[in-house]
Amino acid sequence: MKLGRPRGTRDFLSGEMRVRRTIIERIRGVFEAHGFEEMDTPAIELWEVLAAKGGEEVEHQIYKFQDKGGRWLGLRFDLTVPLARVVACTPDLAKPFKRYNISKVWRYEEPQSGRLREFLQADIDVVGSPRVEADLECISTAVDALRALGLSGFEVRVNDRRILEGMVERLGMDGEGRSKVFRALDKLDKIGIEGVRRELAAAGLEEGKAEEVLSFISCRGREALEYAERELDSPAAREGASDLRRIGDLASAFGLDSLLVDFSLVRGLDYYTGPVFEIKTGTAEIGSIAGGGRYDRLIERFGGPATPATGISLGIERLFEVLKGSGTGQGPVKVFVAGVSDRVTAEAVRISRELIGRGIPAETDLMGRRLGRQLEYADGKGIPYVLIVGPEEISRGKFKLRLMKEKREISGSLEELAGEITGAIGGGRGGAGAEAGEDRSQLRTQA
Amino acid sequence: MKLGRPRGTRDFLSGEMRVRRTIIERIRGVFEAHGFEEMDTPAIELWEVLAAKGGEEVEHQIYKFQDKGGRWLGLRFDLTVPLARVVACTPDLAKPFKRYNISKVWRYEEPQSGRLREFLQADIDVVGSPRVEADLECISTAVDALRALGLSGFEVRVNDRRILEGMVERLGMDGEGRSKVFRALDKLDKIGIEGVRRELAAAGLEEGKAEEVLSFISCRGREALEYAERELDSPAAREGASDLRRIGDLASAFGLDSLLVDFSLVRGLDYYTGPVFEIKTGTAEIGSIAGGGRYDRLIERFGGPATPATGISLGIERLFEVLKGSGTGQGPVKVFVAGVSDRVTAEAVRISRELIGRGIPAETDLMGRRLGRQLEYADGKGIPYVLIVGPEEISRGKFKLRLMKEKREISGSLEELAGEITGAIGGGRGGAGAEAGEDRSQLRTQA
Repeated sequence: MKLGRPRGTRDFLSGEMRVRRTIIERIRGVFEAHGFEEMDTPAIELWEVLAAKGGEEVEHQIYKFQDKGGRWLGLRFDLTVPLARVVACTPDLAKPFKRYNISKVWRYEEPQSGRLREFLQADIDVVGSPRVEADLECISTAVDALRALGLSGFEVRVNDRRILEGMVERLGMDGEGRSKVFRALDKLDKIGIEGVRRELAAAGLEEGKAEEVLSFISCRGREALEYAERELDSPAAREGASDLRRIGDLASAFGLDSLLVDFSLVRGLDYYTGPVFEIKTGTAEIGSIAGGGRYDRLIERFGGPATPATGISLGIERLFEVLKGSGTGQGPVKVFVAGVSDRVTAEAVRISRELIGRGIPAETDLMGRRLGRQLEYADGKGIPYVLIVGPEEISRGKFKLRLMKEKREISGSLEELAGEITGAIGGGRGGAGAEAGEDRSQLRTQA
Repeated sequence: MKLGRPRGTRDFLSGEMRVRRTIIERIRGVFEAHGFEEMDTPAIELWEVLAAKGGEEVEHQIYKFQDKGGRWLGLRFDLTVPLARVVACTPDLAKPFKRYNISKVWRYEEPQSGRLREFLQADIDVVGSPRVEADLECISTAVDALRALGLSGFEVRVNDRRILEGMVERLGMDGEGRSKVFRALDKLDKIGIEGVRRELAAAGLEEGKAEEVLSFISCRGREALEYAERELDSPAAREGASDLRRIGDLASAFGLDSLLVDFSLVRGLDYYTGPVFEIKTGTAEIGSIAGGGRYDRLIERFGGPATPATGISLGIERLFEVLKGSGTGQGPVKVFVAGVSDRVTAEAVRISRELIGRGIPAETDLMGRRLGRQLEYADGKGIPYVLIVGPEEISRGKFKLRLMKEKREISGSLEELAGEITGAIGGGRGGAGAEAGEDRSQLRTQA
C-alpha cells in the first residue's frame, strides 16, 4: 500500500522549497519596505462569510464541510474575503490599513500546469483610501516585488469598471446582459476578438451593439480616455475616466514606465467598483502574473461601514513555475564535520555546534558512517566544506578542511578554519535572513 | 450583519503578527543553521493517509470532508503524517533526511488558552538514522531555537518506550492493559501521583502491581537506569536503557546541560518506539513547550520500507502566548514622507520610493490628508521619522526631517537626511531579513 496526495496538490522538498522560500521572502521584504504589514487569518472560515462575497463560480469551487458540531465551514478561496471580514469587524483600524498576506488558498478546479487546487497567493491591499494613489501603491509595490525576483519588461494594463458600466448602460443593457458582456470580454485573452464576437452573438446581443462593444474595447491609452470622455454620459463613467487620467499622470512618480489604459480589461465578474489592473512580464511563459482592482462596496457586504479599498494579488505558483529552475541546488549547510570513527563523535558534535555558534551553518554525521560515506553524503548535498576530525587532530588542535569543489585541503586551528570559511561565504549568517539578502542573480528567469 | 470566525481560530494583525513572524523566522534560522531543510506539503490529505497513522482520539479530531468528486479528505492534524507519506513514497531520498516544517495544523478540540483549533507547529525530524545522535540532534536544535527566542532554564526529560514496554511486560499485562497504564501515566503532570493511583485502580490493575508501576515511574536519572538494568529482562528494554545511557553521555557535547531520565514520561499513546523526550523552560507560564520521540515503524504503515525516524515538535501558540507582550509596537516603516498639499503628491511619492531604493522602508500619504493628519498617522504607527515635502523644499532641494520621539527637526538634502536615517537605523535593510537579524532582546519573556 502506497498512499498518495489529493489531486491538484503538491509536496515541495529541499531544492524546490528553497526557491519558493526565496520567492516568498523577497516579496515579503518589498511589501514591508513599502509599509504593508502582515496579517494572518484562519484557513477555515464560516460558510456564511465565504458566501457573503457571492459569485456562483467561486461557490462551486469552495471546499465546504461541517465541523463536529454541525457548523458549516469552508476553506478560504482567496485572501480578500478574510480581509473584508476583519475590516468589517474591526472598526477602529487606523486608515489607511495597508496589509499583506502570503498564504495558501484552495479551489476545486481542474488542475493544469501552474494551476493547483491548493496554491499560494501574495496579496497587498490598501483599505480606507478612495484615491488612485492607493491603487498605484498596490500596482507599484507589486511591480517592485517582481523586480526583486529578477523579472523585467513589465506591462501594466488598467481600466475602470465605471467605464465598462457606462458602456453597457449606453447600450441600454440590464444586469443580466451586462454580466454576459463582461463574461465575454473577460475571455478576450483566451479566445481572441473573433471568439468574443461569437460569445456576444450567442449571448443575444444584436450585431450593431456587439460591434460597438468591440470597437470600444479595442481602444487603448490616451485615445481611449478621450473616446470615453466624448462618448459616455454617466457621471460615474466620467469619474472613472478622470481617475484613469490621474493614474496615468502619477504613474512615473510611482516608478511605472509602461502603464496602458486598456478598455478590454475586465478582471472577472467580481466585486470591483473602480480601477482594475493587471501586470504582465516580458517573460513569455508567465503572461499575467498579478491582478486586482478597487472594491469600495465589499466591506459593506460583511456588515462593515462603507469603506473604500483596493488591492492586488500575485500568483506565486506561476512565478514558481518560471523560477524553479534557478535554484542553486545548495542547501544552507556550509560545513560537514566528519568524524573518522565513533570514538570522536562527541568531539565532532561539539565542533559542529561551535561552528554554528560562529554563524556557520554546519552538520555532522548522525549515522555512525565511515569517513568515505560521510564525504559522499556531503558531496551529494553540495556542502562546500568538510572538516575532518580524528583523535590526532583533536589532540593537536589542528584540523584538515576539505574544499569539496576544488578537491584540495587546507589545515589549521578551528579558529583559523572558521575564519577562512566565514570569509569565503561572506559574513556567515545562516537562515532565511541571509537567503533573503542574497545576491539577486540567484533567482533569474530562464527566458 | 457582522460575520465571525470559526471557534478556536484567530486573526493576527500588525503588532501580534510581527511577534509571530519574528518567532517563526528565528526558529527557521536555527533549524537551517543545523542543516534541516524546509519541506511543505498540502494542508489537505487523503482520508486514508490521515487514518493510516491510527489513534482513535486523533481520528475524532480531524476535520473530514468530501471533495466535489466524492473523495474523502481531511485537514492534517500534525506534520508527522505528511512526512511519513512523503518518505514512504520517495525511496530515493538521501539519508539522513533532515527536514523542518513550520506550518498550520487543525484539530477539532475544545478551545482553551493557548489551545486553538487551527494552530502553528514547528517540527524537525531526522529520517534514516537509528542512532541516538539523531534524537539528540532534534532535542538540541529545538533547545537552540528556544534560546534564540530569549528563553532559558531548560529542563529536558527523556525516557524510552522500550523501557515502559518492559515494565508492563514484567507485570504480565496485555495490549489493552498496557494502553490503560500508559494512558494513566500520561496524565501524571495534570492529575498528580494520587490521580494516577486512582486511574490505575479504575483500570482494574491490582494494588501490588499499581504500586510497582508507581515506584518504577518515580525513578529519575542514573538511579533509574540502574534500576531498569537490574529489574527488566527483555532485550528491548535493555537496549532502551543502553540508548538512554548513551544519550546521557553525549548530552553535553550537544549543548544540553540538564537532561534528566524520567520513567514517567510517556508522550501519549502514539507511535513511538524508542526514546521519547520533552522540553520545559524555566518560564513558569510555558511549561512543556516541545516534545517528540523516535518512531521507527511509522513509515511502514504508509507503505514505505522499514525506516528509522525521530523528531520533535515545538508548540508555536504557547510560545506566542508568552512572547506576545514583547513586541515593540513598531512596524517596518522608518520614514513617513508627508506632502504639504496635493500639488506635491508626485514628488512625495518619488522621494518615498527613492528612500525605499536606498534600503529605508518608507511610505507616503495615500489619502490626500492635511499635514497635521499625516503627522498624527505617522505618530500613531510609531514611525520614527517624518520627511516634509513642500514646493519650497522641492525647489531648494532641502528638506526638513522630523524626529518624532525627540520632537525636533533637522534639515538637509535628501542625500544627507537618508544618510542620517540609515546611520540611526543601522544598515537600513527592511523586511523579514532585518527583523530576523535584530537584537535578540526584543523578544523577551515577561517572566
